[in-house]
Amino acid sequence: MHPMHEDAAVPVAVLGASGFSGAEALRLLAGHPAFSVVAAGAGDAAGRPVADLYPHLAPAYGDVVFSKVGGPEDLAGAGAALVALPHEESARAVPPLVESGVRVVDLSGAFRLAAEAYPAWYGFEHPSPGWPGKAVYGLPEMFADEIAGAELVANPGCYPTAVALALAPLLSEGLLDPAHVTIDAKSGVSGAGRKPSDFVHHAMTEGSVRPYRVGTHQHTPEIEQVLERAGGTPVAVTFVPHLVPAVRGVLVTCYARLAHPATTEDLVGALTESHSGAPFVRVLPAGSMPDPKRVAGSNVCEVGAVADPRTGTAVAVGAVDNLVKGAAGQAIQNLNLMHGLDQAAGLPVLGVYP
Amino acid sequence: MHPMHEDAAVPVAVLGASGFSGAEALRLLAGHPAFSVVAAGAGDAAGRPVADLYPHLAPAYGDVVFSKVGGPEDLAGAGAALVALPHEESARAVPPLVESGVRVVDLSGAFRLAAEAYPAWYGFEHPSPGWPGKAVYGLPEMFADEIAGAELVANPGCYPTAVALALAPLLSEGLLDPAHVTIDAKSGVSGAGRKPSDFVHHAMTEGSVRPYRVGTHQHTPEIEQVLERAGGTPVAVTFVPHLVPAVRGVLVTCYARLAHPATTEDLVGALTESHSGAPFVRVLPAGSMPDPKRVAGSNVCEVGAVADPRTGTAVAVGAVDNLVKGAAGQAIQNLNLMHGLDQAAGLPVLGVYP
Amino acid sequence: MHPMHEDAAVPVAVLGASGFSGAEALRLLAGHPAFSVVAAGAGDAAGRPVADLYPHLAPAYGDVVFSKVGGPEDLAGAGAALVALPHEESARAVPPLVESGVRVVDLSGAFRLAAEAYPAWYGFEHPSPGWPGKAVYGLPEMFADEIAGAELVANPGCYPTAVALALAPLLSEGLLDPAHVTIDAKSGVSGAGRKPSDFVHHAMTEGSVRPYRVGTHQHTPEIEQVLERAGGTPVAVTFVPHLVPAVRGVLVTCYARLAHPATTEDLVGALTESHSGAPFVRVLPAGSMPDPKRVAGSNVCEVGAVADPRTGTAVAVGAVDNLVKGAAGQAIQNLNLMHGLDQAAGLPVLGVYP
Amino acid sequence: MHPMHEDAAVPVAVLGASGFSGAEALRLLAGHPAFSVVAAGAGDAAGRPVADLYPHLAPAYGDVVFSKVGGPEDLAGAGAALVALPHEESARAVPPLVESGVRVVDLSGAFRLAAEAYPAWYGFEHPSPGWPGKAVYGLPEMFADEIAGAELVANPGCYPTAVALALAPLLSEGLLDPAHVTIDAKSGVSGAGRKPSDFVHHAMTEGSVRPYRVGTHQHTPEIEQVLERAGGTPVAVTFVPHLVPAVRGVLVTCYARLAHPATTEDLVGALTESHSGAPFVRVLPAGSMPDPKRVAGSNVCEVGAVADPRTGTAVAVGAVDNLVKGAAGQAIQNLNLMHGLDQAAGLPVLGVYP
Repeated sequence: MHPMHEDAAVPVAVLGASGFSGAEALRLLAGHPAFSVVAAGAGDAAGRPVADLYPHLAPAYGDVVFSKVGGPEDLAGAGAALVALPHEESARAVPPLVESGVRVVDLSGAFRLAAEAYPAWYGFEHPSPGWPGKAVYGLPEMFADEIAGAELVANPGCYPTAVALALAPLLSEGLLDPAHVTIDAKSGVSGAGRKPSDFVHHAMTEGSVRPYRVGTHQHTPEIEQVLERAGGTPVAVTFVPHLVPAVRGVLVTCYARLAHPATTEDLVGALTESHSGAPFVRVLPAGSMPDPKRVAGSNVCEVGAVADPRTGTAVAVGAVDNLVKGAAGQAIQNLNLMHGLDQAAGLPVLGVYP
Repeated sequence: MHPMHEDAAVPVAVLGASGFSGAEALRLLAGHPAFSVVAAGAGDAAGRPVADLYPHLAPAYGDVVFSKVGGPEDLAGAGAALVALPHEESARAVPPLVESGVRVVDLSGAFRLAAEAYPAWYGFEHPSPGWPGKAVYGLPEMFADEIAGAELVANPGCYPTAVALALAPLLSEGLLDPAHVTIDAKSGVSGAGRKPSDFVHHAMTEGSVRPYRVGTHQHTPEIEQVLERAGGTPVAVTFVPHLVPAVRGVLVTCYARLAHPATTEDLVGALTESHSGAPFVRVLPAGSMPDPKRVAGSNVCEVGAVADPRTGTAVAVGAVDNLVKGAAGQAIQNLNLMHGLDQAAGLPVLGVYP
Repeated sequence: MHPMHEDAAVPVAVLGASGFSGAEALRLLAGHPAFSVVAAGAGDAAGRPVADLYPHLAPAYGDVVFSKVGGPEDLAGAGAALVALPHEESARAVPPLVESGVRVVDLSGAFRLAAEAYPAWYGFEHPSPGWPGKAVYGLPEMFADEIAGAELVANPGCYPTAVALALAPLLSEGLLDPAHVTIDAKSGVSGAGRKPSDFVHHAMTEGSVRPYRVGTHQHTPEIEQVLERAGGTPVAVTFVPHLVPAVRGVLVTCYARLAHPATTEDLVGALTESHSGAPFVRVLPAGSMPDPKRVAGSNVCEVGAVADPRTGTAVAVGAVDNLVKGAAGQAIQNLNLMHGLDQAAGLPVLGVYP
Repeated sequence: MHPMHEDAAVPVAVLGASGFSGAEALRLLAGHPAFSVVAAGAGDAAGRPVADLYPHLAPAYGDVVFSKVGGPEDLAGAGAALVALPHEESARAVPPLVESGVRVVDLSGAFRLAAEAYPAWYGFEHPSPGWPGKAVYGLPEMFADEIAGAELVANPGCYPTAVALALAPLLSEGLLDPAHVTIDAKSGVSGAGRKPSDFVHHAMTEGSVRPYRVGTHQHTPEIEQVLERAGGTPVAVTFVPHLVPAVRGVLVTCYARLAHPATTEDLVGALTESHSGAPFVRVLPAGSMPDPKRVAGSNVCEVGAVADPRTGTAVAVGAVDNLVKGAAGQAIQNLNLMHGLDQAAGLPVLGVYP
């Protein structure tokens, strides 16, 4: 279907391909050595050429048209699917796919939490309550082995990805008091999705900094869950995301009390050790702080930390491109693991900067 | 000197007028009914027309030239001065001015802390260690009476202004545990000053979110001090500022544990009561959050708060235009009080939006 | 209705007050010494508080609610109206207002061209074809006398305003060949209106430069018409507007062949002479070029020019804030003239910069 | 030297590697299948790790240090060099390199014009006046054969690249009157280089649109020269570049009189035919216009055209990423041709969007 299609390539479908994360998956898959896109599913955009909505994809998808994907029969023989649908839609669409033998990486939040958490955090009763329990949480730096064998991977949210990579090693080393963790996050507007609204109108975004869903963002329990798995003990998280005037990029600034006196070097050391061998995590030396601009377009997560001995606080910071390591790139990293490939196959490590 | 000069106007000098805060003072004073600018001091820019560096000021300062101000003798008869010099320079320049009878509002940090704090937080020994104690902290919403009679006002920093207006009422009402307060701040690049650098090069700022001076920013002790005065008890603050890709505007997101169960309405109520009658503080109703874009160009500070009962945390948020309420506007508000005028005289309340 | 209402003030209605231009009219009228807003008309937003859509206006319009304005009977006694409705809607709504004795400044394009031009350039048959001929073109720098006595003023478009102020003096002085004028315009996204769309989604605007309506923009005949009145001879204009990643601001770069050899000084001299006494036109000295950033928030138009002797070309450049001198500010300037006031009354001359 | 170094790879030196274009060359070469970077020359930055100035390059250049390159002896055995030095510096440094047998692609303007043009357009006497005549102009879409055999390639400027690809086919087909061509260009700030200045300070760029070097930009004669080669007849160009608030990206809007009546389809047809087979030129269908955002990070140039029959004018538009197709990407495309490789080898065709 696309110019780089090779006979030996694994055929992959992208559902919800007309959204930002789906389109980013198309971009990254176009250069992948082992996968080939055979279907690009969409809703309202079905029937329109990919290059109509995303002219930048024309060189690789010049002749591809978004298609309506109702069920497994519409996948054009794909053995794997990246699903980037709205949460509730995904919750309905994914189980039949998996049951039909398609291996799925789901980019929505539909399979990340226990089923009973959905009414409170996502605003809907989970339509397939038995399924979240079957999904593997797709953070390769923590769960690579489980991912390799999974039929259904719940790809992490952008914020939880950055938080987990910056904070989990510190919790698992016992450096932090898990009782109260405060996370202040900043995101570019692509995180709010493609749908036009007042909220993302350039006239309202330029010059603005806007907290939203204070204390109620659906990534809060996901963050608590992954940190609890890391530290082995419950973690209470106060999470406040902000929209900043940028397109791509998420920066999370995480605050926790030090469990006992520790230096910046201790914190950086724990991060370095934990992430040794992780191809997409860059631990910054003491004195440096992450910046999402530097990872734009790449699958890298930058992490850094500072100890403030004056107040007994640790500040851990993570930065990702929300569309790559925070969505489509990580999904492909998971897909790589699921297919026995090098987890880094086909994924960019150099951001486009400046 | 400027077109709106009236004989009855109080002659005012602006020192450090070529920086962003100084130039903003020129802008605001141009429309002031009771003050008239008689000297615009500068360093390297001395001798150049104001309109060279700031063409937008040409309509009001078309014929004004920056001048070298060495001491009181260069003030062209000004009875009052707004001083927007670098910290250490201000620490040396202000005392002789005050001793010569000029009433000063100093916009630097030179008189905000106890003298002994300067080596650690500002990197220099205070050259006039007896003077910080003589200055009144110029936050009109808390210290209007002292300001009215002051000879020297230490104009607050942009971050401390937003923090104090958002947080002090909650502390003084006993709603918060003062033991650990976390403040995550976001600032546009004008806060970094006019001097060109890699840090403020557009190519490096667009798309970036950059934490800086983590735990070591000089506004930290200033924030602790003003919160301690509000709450009557020591407050330990972890403060992390970030540079976001905007020009004007500061947003501070403040986290503290609730001293006892309280609702969002309780917090908003305390803010509303405390700020009733404050012409430049807008308390947002429950459910709304501040945005610095909405106060750009105005002297308004927006504040709002949310209680998160799940984690027992209060989130209080403040937003100011760092060059107006966070610098020059507040300085003029102080100057108004010092001259027995309505504190709001000549100051804009409507931001330029979008 | 607003806090600055005074008994002696002229009651003014703003129709289409929920759009960017209408809201800017509210902002500017809040500080006007002689006008008072008595009605803020809106469509879908009728019934909602002004401060809901435009929180920055809360200090002046805290208690004002957008209202449905069907006809003169809904104007709350206003003797004058600023009408900022969509073109075709305005074409229907304005005549009854004027017939009822209300003096109108219409900010749409509905009364700027001859009636027969509307199908081709605006896409609709003019519903009140006798009315464009009754309107005075509201460019105060050229038609102040006619405006003073007008019942209906057609407020110029943002692009034509900047073009006319930069180019008309050169044409009327015979410095340019009117046969072929090329105008390349750049606008911030607020010019595209408040309605959300892909086109103004921050994710699509940041980093983009987008030509639109190449050769077919509805301001083309308006530009030709005003230049023809200036030069006394037909002018053919090729006009290409571009959307750039900014909020406010229009810059027009105008190219024409020199009618005979002339220097930059000749061009600047003609601009200076023509605009002497114009309170809102700033002619830049040779060597300087306009920048819309410097006039943001103000009613000023910057103009400048360069002669390129090598190719025999004149380059004239104009910059305005499209919401102020390009819309609401100019409308109030017209309203001032219509009421015998100083044309500059209540209008800002200092931009908010940086 | 970098992780992708292979024994068979051609060793390449990058001089001026600490500037934006040089660093972009490092980024692109890191993923190139046939070249390997063996030296990264710099001036003030010599001795500092590449990752200090460009942290995004750390994954590929983590252990590489900028070095001082005084002459051929410092090239670590490189057989080819990309030289991204300041113009005059390049004019001195390149000839000894070529004489020593190194094949050079020079990204400065030092070898693009006849030697006698340098005082007027570049402000210096060419120190090696015999050398511009030995260089091949490195626009692969027009001069691929000459490039293949060249020892010294003068890599085109960003503006001339976009102009030539949009306009040359129309001139060579005789569709345009070459007498007067007007080019209005818009560039992001990375085009102004890495050196900090007022001009590129974020506080001055956001919200601004700034014409610069009106009629005197050094790319003017380069544009005239390449268009003359295309059309076979002298072309007089009025060229006005503008800085817009973006980082990457150049858009050129070119205006010329139609030589005889022609439609948009005629123009698009000529572009399509001329560029058939060009791997990096995307001709947009009638009705679409280029946008540099869509080619950001890629080596693609988008071109489009519109005929305005009303005024007899053709509008041709081109867009490139100034750091890729406008600099480092095109340089590598040339390097590919010089080494007998597919000209597209190792170069990205998909932009990072949004």
